[in-house]
Amino acid sequence: MLAVHLENGRVEMRRRRTPRRPRGFALIRLLCGGICNTDLELQRGYYGFRGTPGHEFVGVVVEADDGALVGRRVVGEINLACGRCEWCRRELGRHCPHRTVLGIVKHPGVFSELFTLPERNLHVLPDSISTEHAVFTEPLAAACEILEQVAIPAKEEVGLRGYGKLGRLIAQVLEARGYRVHVYRRHDAVPKAAFGWVIEATGSPEGLRQAIAMARPRGTVIIKSTVHGAVRLDTAPVVVNEITLVGSRCGRFEPALKLLASGKLRLEEMISARFPLREAPRAFRAAARPGTLKVLLTG
Amino acid sequence: MLAVHLENGRVEMRRRRTPRRPRGFALIRLLCGGICNTDLELQRGYYGFRGTPGHEFVGVVVEADDGALVGRRVVGEINLACGRCEWCRRELGRHCPHRTVLGIVKHPGVFSELFTLPERNLHVLPDSISTEHAVFTEPLAAACEILEQVAIPAKEEVGLRGYGKLGRLIAQVLEARGYRVHVYRRHDAVPKAAFGWVIEATGSPEGLRQAIAMARPRGTVIIKSTVHGAVRLDTAPVVVNEITLVGSRCGRFEPALKLLASGKLRLEEMISARFPLREAPRAFRAAARPGTLKVLLTG
Repeated sequence: MLAVHLENGRVEMRRRRTPRRPRGFALIRLLCGGICNTDLELQRGYYGFRGTPGHEFVGVVVEADDGALVGRRVVGEINLACGRCEWCRRELGRHCPHRTVLGIVKHPGVFSELFTLPERNLHVLPDSISTEHAVFTEPLAAACEILEQVAIPAKEEVGLRGYGKLGRLIAQVLEARGYRVHVYRRHDAVPKAAFGWVIEATGSPEGLRQAIAMARPRGTVIIKSTVHGAVRLDTAPVVVNEITLVGSRCGRFEPALKLLASGKLRLEEMISARFPLREAPRAFRAAARPGTLKVLLTG
Repeated sequence: MLAVHLENGRVEMRRRRTPRRPRGFALIRLLCGGICNTDLELQRGYYGFRGTPGHEFVGVVVEADDGALVGRRVVGEINLACGRCEWCRRELGRHCPHRTVLGIVKHPGVFSELFTLPERNLHVLPDSISTEHAVFTEPLAAACEILEQVAIPAKEEVGLRGYGKLGRLIAQVLEARGYRVHVYRRHDAVPKAAFGWVIEATGSPEGLRQAIAMARPRGTVIIKSTVHGAVRLDTAPVVVNEITLVGSRCGRFEPALKLLASGKLRLEEMISARFPLREAPRAFRAAARPGTLKVLLTG
């Protein structure tokens, strides 16, 4: 089978054996994959990654222990948790210390004709959700995670710093839930102490500093994107203004699937390009160009 | 009257006129003042401070619009709020953008035989609280503020990084409220991902980094001390582990006074030395020595 191989910053196509399917795992054929900023960061050498990347996908189940899954169109949670520790018992396998992560940490990713994932990670898609919408489930779940972590009062005005792929999804999720979102793009000046709730989605140190400056005293800043390396941060305003900073990562798929089924999202405008899997090297180059939104790989 | 004057790192005694008492203000005679780390920082030149420092005090009211206050022993909230803005209306004058701050920002401090403060800032002390206990009201209120901001589940184990003046008060407040506190001093190794709740009270960049490392996924770190200048912070673990950082400053006096009246606190062990006001320069030198706890100035 054909699979993307990423090593030392190079993206290339390789022929591989069909992966072995461990007990409890499904073998899945890729229908559609999405290139995420994390994939581009893996390419830049973060986490010392080498292998097949990819964690945003829609696939069809080829083989599984559970016969009812076979032939179904699925999306899948990306954390492969141990299922036995305290975190897993609390249904927070996303924080399981023994976890591997699809296409990121010690589990081959989905940019491959076939791949495996535990059956318990899978969600069968209803026919009402198209494949090109469903491929946004994982980043949408990350956007929805904000509202799972903090209770923003109804109809509140929210400041959003950053309007790339993740920022745009966050804006759509918040608007669908009735919040008024004020967007500040990369070069926009930001108002000081203007919002009780601010979301940082730029992934830049300057973006984080500005998000903190945008927050009112006693306000909350949700840090939605990771910045690589150390950030120089003045913590005095955080203490003096009693600001809360909330780190936020990936989320449960259920709220995202519910939102997708609602039809409230405008996802076509989020897709910049589509490439067949065998053209993944071109697709990665396209995804890396500034201003590009989602680039899809079709199976 | 005699007052401490702080300028260019020098602490000296000066003769001053008795301050004018504006309408709504009380004129107060110092009974006891406490030297705080903030005072030492003002001495080091932070905030470009020049004048009379001091904000931890017990005094007796000499003159006031409200005759019932005269002759009473009082403590006082340190933020002089405008009383009219949105923050003041919400009883959060501590965040009033127009505020001045006793002995810190544009209002002369209490290390002076006589000083003024708005009558609405004052709390009359019950006879059951001694003057040397009551002088801890302001830092105790800052310690109590933690439990006003976050709801730590009953009997939870809390990690405390830093065990100086503020750290010790925080430990006493948390223990009085039934929490089990695990203290990590400056040179102690800290356990990784060990606590759902961590309090940072070292005022050092390394302390903050360690406090974050001590927090479990989905845990909360309360940042109780300010670090001057920019801190180099790796935000990736905050996002990946979905940690919440809560800046926490000063608090309402009511919970602190209630705790003082309960008799549950051991404050004698917190006092390192006592000096008369006229020996303030010696007192500041003593307070600056590593390991020194509270140094008191008696009026």
